[in-house]
Amino acid sequence: MKQKEFIQKNRLEAFSDGVFAIIITLLVLEIKVPHIEQHNSTEALLTALQSLLPKFLSWVISFLVIAVIWVNHHRILELVEKVDYSFFWFNANLLLWTSFIPFPTALMGDYAHNPLAVSFFGIVLSLTAMAFTLMRRYLANHGDILKREIEQQTLKSTALKSFLIGPLVYWIGAGLAWIHPAISWTIYLIIPVYFIFPSIKQKTS
Amino acid sequence: MKQKEFIQKNRLEAFSDGVFAIIITLLVLEIKVPHIEQHNSTEALLTALQSLLPKFLSWVISFLVIAVIWVNHHRILELVEKVDYSFFWFNANLLLWTSFIPFPTALMGDYAHNPLAVSFFGIVLSLTAMAFTLMRRYLANHGDILKREIEQQTLKSTALKSFLIGPLVYWIGAGLAWIHPAISWTIYLIIPVYFIFPSIKQKTS
Amino acid sequence: MKQKEFIQKNRLEAFSDGVFAIIITLLVLEIKVPHIEQHNSTEALLTALQSLLPKFLSWVISFLVIAVIWVNHHRILELVEKVDYSFFWFNANLLLWTSFIPFPTALMGDYAHNPLAVSFFGIVLSLTAMAFTLMRRYLANHGDILKREIEQQTLKSTALKSFLIGPLVYWIGAGLAWIHPAISWTIYLIIPVYFIFPSIKQKTS
Amino acid sequence: MKQKEFIQKNRLEAFSDGVFAIIITLLVLEIKVPHIEQHNSTEALLTALQSLLPKFLSWVISFLVIAVIWVNHHRILELVEKVDYSFFWFNANLLLWTSFIPFPTALMGDYAHNPLAVSFFGIVLSLTAMAFTLMRRYLANHGDILKREIEQQTLKSTALKSFLIGPLVYWIGAGLAWIHPAISWTIYLIIPVYFIFPSIKQKTS
Repeated sequence: MKQKEFIQKNRLEAFSDGVFAIIITLLVLEIKVPHIEQHNSTEALLTALQSLLPKFLSWVISFLVIAVIWVNHHRILELVEKVDYSFFWFNANLLLWTSFIPFPTALMGDYAHNPLAVSFFGIVLSLTAMAFTLMRRYLANHGDILKREIEQQTLKSTALKSFLIGPLVYWIGAGLAWIHPAISWTIYLIIPVYFIFPSIKQKTS
Repeated sequence: MKQKEFIQKNRLEAFSDGVFAIIITLLVLEIKVPHIEQHNSTEALLTALQSLLPKFLSWVISFLVIAVIWVNHHRILELVEKVDYSFFWFNANLLLWTSFIPFPTALMGDYAHNPLAVSFFGIVLSLTAMAFTLMRRYLANHGDILKREIEQQTLKSTALKSFLIGPLVYWIGAGLAWIHPAISWTIYLIIPVYFIFPSIKQKTS
Repeated sequence: MKQKEFIQKNRLEAFSDGVFAIIITLLVLEIKVPHIEQHNSTEALLTALQSLLPKFLSWVISFLVIAVIWVNHHRILELVEKVDYSFFWFNANLLLWTSFIPFPTALMGDYAHNPLAVSFFGIVLSLTAMAFTLMRRYLANHGDILKREIEQQTLKSTALKSFLIGPLVYWIGAGLAWIHPAISWTIYLIIPVYFIFPSIKQKTS
Repeated sequence: MKQKEFIQKNRLEAFSDGVFAIIITLLVLEIKVPHIEQHNSTEALLTALQSLLPKFLSWVISFLVIAVIWVNHHRILELVEKVDYSFFWFNANLLLWTSFIPFPTALMGDYAHNPLAVSFFGIVLSLTAMAFTLMRRYLANHGDILKREIEQQTLKSTALKSFLIGPLVYWIGAGLAWIHPAISWTIYLIIPVYFIFPSIKQKTS
């Protein structure tokens, strides 16, 4: 039997960190400088900037989402002792959907009231969340790449929990866009905030 | 009580360095090649390039600002022994506003004489400076993540000083745009230069 | 005789990882948000998104190709003990063609039925594959930069094999575009999948 | 007297490597997919691609130049034991001009026969070369940040040599654009090639 090959964990981390850093930074490129005729009119520029508000908001939401993805990625890799090729491809699946985020972000920013654009955003984010669930499930079933002190049983329950509060919530958010897009916007904003604030509170107490 | 979780400091540095490196490099993408009808006319091209001067200047200012941000970030992380989740989010707040810089840079380059565009630039930079103040204040109040040799008392006074010479100066710069945009441009250029030259002089003496 | 100079392997890896991370992320920038007149019409937006399908597919193909390139690059650098200047330039040749990928990806996405666009994509990918063949052949002939435990003889046969299943397959794919572009699309998609699935299966067995 | 502060060399390398990796990758974004009316016409697409030849060539030249910059940067940092703030700013000066390269590259690609565009490219590259001369001269005068085994005297002669074969050659190239742009194009291509081939030959002998 061929020996199992491994990937250097620090190179995978560096590569993933690079991808996350680039995506979080590219988002802003989708906000284009508005074109106004009277160059020195502050009123015209203010109106133009105000019409960009949905773009600013979708940018902030995606920024927070990617920061949360970074934290989750960091947490998962803290469990891993060595990286095999299957884990590499589960990680690549996460990077695929994460690197796609600038497109639905710009789409939702441009078509803020269009249910399709707004639910499309939620579907893409649910795929990033699903990628985490798949990574966690893989780890739960492959104890050989985990650090010794990690209990596989705990991982199995975390995998289920990460499904319920991950993809499921995004599907609900995406579905409600067909009732009113504003509901989805609110849900999309609450999800990362829900991850951020408890983590701050818990850790500082 | 749940045990406090930490983030690997070197991964946070790598991620932040990645973001800074990308922002500092993306800035130039906002300077578009001018379109002239007579392809081989050097006069027409010179005129077109001259009209880009505000874009070049806003690019240089933002480049210097981001280099100064990198230096300040480096200095702050030299104080830190280990990174907790709250510190991560204070750091993310810095990255958020820093990654936004390409937009106000392009806006100010396009509308160099518009007080709104020029003061908007200052407001965004004041938010990056404010992010540093918040990081320093958090460190001053959480001695457990500092290196042993760092005195918390010194940090408290630095936090105040970093507020006075950071956000405050940018607010003044932003406000003066409504008197004359050129005053703000001058202030925005002087601020990073003021950080750079003393640091060179001090260190080489 | 002048002493042979070497390059720090970890800096070369970091630089190459940076380039791969950026390319894999930039790809999505080539998918532009469609412009529709009726902002809130879900039918119009659906039609517009459907017309982007070739762009989505070419993006996925290139994403997978670059992930496979990362894996191959990782495998090759695992063989190397120290990096000399010649190896640096063979590596730079790989980065050159890899960093070009966003252009043929966008071209094929825009002109999905044009044999020239589709075969151009295959030619560029064959050049990335050829760059690997050249790197492997260089290593096979320069045992001094290899790790001790690596046998040069094995490398020679791998270099040949990497030529046959690399550039050659892409040339066939590129050639068949002139019969029907859909054949090439299928081949381009199968190639990375062919690398990914066995690697998962083998490693998990 | 205040104690001299230093910057972590590995963070400076990571930051600079990030910037180089991004610039070398962004270059290709300046090559836009051509627009043709008859989507499936291979003749029309071939003509359109041929008209992009100057863009491809300017991209290759800049890619090689940035790879040479990476090698030179690597060589200089191999001399350095610890990084002080002045050295940081000399390094930032290099990054400033290097990160500007995408603009003159695109400009020369668009206006391949315009002497101003072609000499502008040479001027910017001379500024990157000058940045290296300044870094070498600073090191020659500040032995305290060098590694022990490096002789300052050698550095002084290298600083002069790096001026003569660096900025000077680019100025000549830039000047000759006013006689005929093709001469400059040839010189710009020869310069990086002149650095690459001897280094390969020397090292493999």
